[in-house]
Amino acid sequence: MTRPTSEPEGELEEIPEAECLEILDQHNLGRIAVVVDGQPQIFPINYAMSGRIISFRTGPGTKLSHAPDSKVGFEIDEYDSSAGSGWSVMVHGVAVDATESFDDVSWAARAATPWPLAPGAKPFRIAIEPSKISGRRFRRRG
Amino acid sequence: MTRPTSEPEGELEEIPEAECLEILDQHNLGRIAVVVDGQPQIFPINYAMSGRIISFRTGPGTKLSHAPDSKVGFEIDEYDSSAGSGWSVMVHGVAVDATESFDDVSWAARAATPWPLAPGAKPFRIAIEPSKISGRRFRRRG
Repeated sequence: MTRPTSEPEGELEEIPEAECLEILDQHNLGRIAVVVDGQPQIFPINYAMSGRIISFRTGPGTKLSHAPDSKVGFEIDEYDSSAGSGWSVMVHGVAVDATESFDDVSWAARAATPWPLAPGAKPFRIAIEPSKISGRRFRRRG
Repeated sequence: MTRPTSEPEGELEEIPEAECLEILDQHNLGRIAVVVDGQPQIFPINYAMSGRIISFRTGPGTKLSHAPDSKVGFEIDEYDSSAGSGWSVMVHGVAVDATESFDDVSWAARAATPWPLAPGAKPFRIAIEPSKISGRRFRRRG
């Protein structure tokens, strides 16, 4: 493995929000961060988009107990170490238990069809309503 | 694309801590969650291990301003959607600005050699001292 002898050079650019939404649409595996007693915890989730709303299914547990009505973070990324390129999209938002509620966000979340890869019953539906969506990408120079 | 018509079946098992540490050692791209004014944020980072200590380099910004002396989350994962298998390792801990400090955690963090893929100067070193390391993996049945 060849290791760099100095800082990697290259360009780091912001991804506009509209393109972040396209990227979110094209993927289905992301990670949610929830805070439990001051301790942030990260969980991988299979998600689907409904417009700007991120929708995922879950079972009883930390996500169901601590995400709804709280601020959560969400992130997806992809890296190619041989090409020295990568991108990430980050979302700040508030989670909603969309399992049975009749608000617009919950309706939107239930219209999406996320397919969990992990086994186990996941009868609950959680929506993330974004307050901020941002992204960045880079490519190593030369 | 064939989509499942019911819940995926399979086995979900805990990964023992010793094996979680081996998996952490074998990888170099993870994600850290920090909390800024109650808002959890997730950032991808290239890391290296020094024993149980997770070490990464960073520049000025949110991670440097909000991780040190705070609870942080850290996570790595890998999924193979065609095989229906995956694993994740999750860490709870406290971050330390290890750039110049002389405590044991900072020494350990500086002994590790993380190689950031993203461009930009990253003269600061942050250590994560784990308070809890856990993991789980699954494989779809049949």
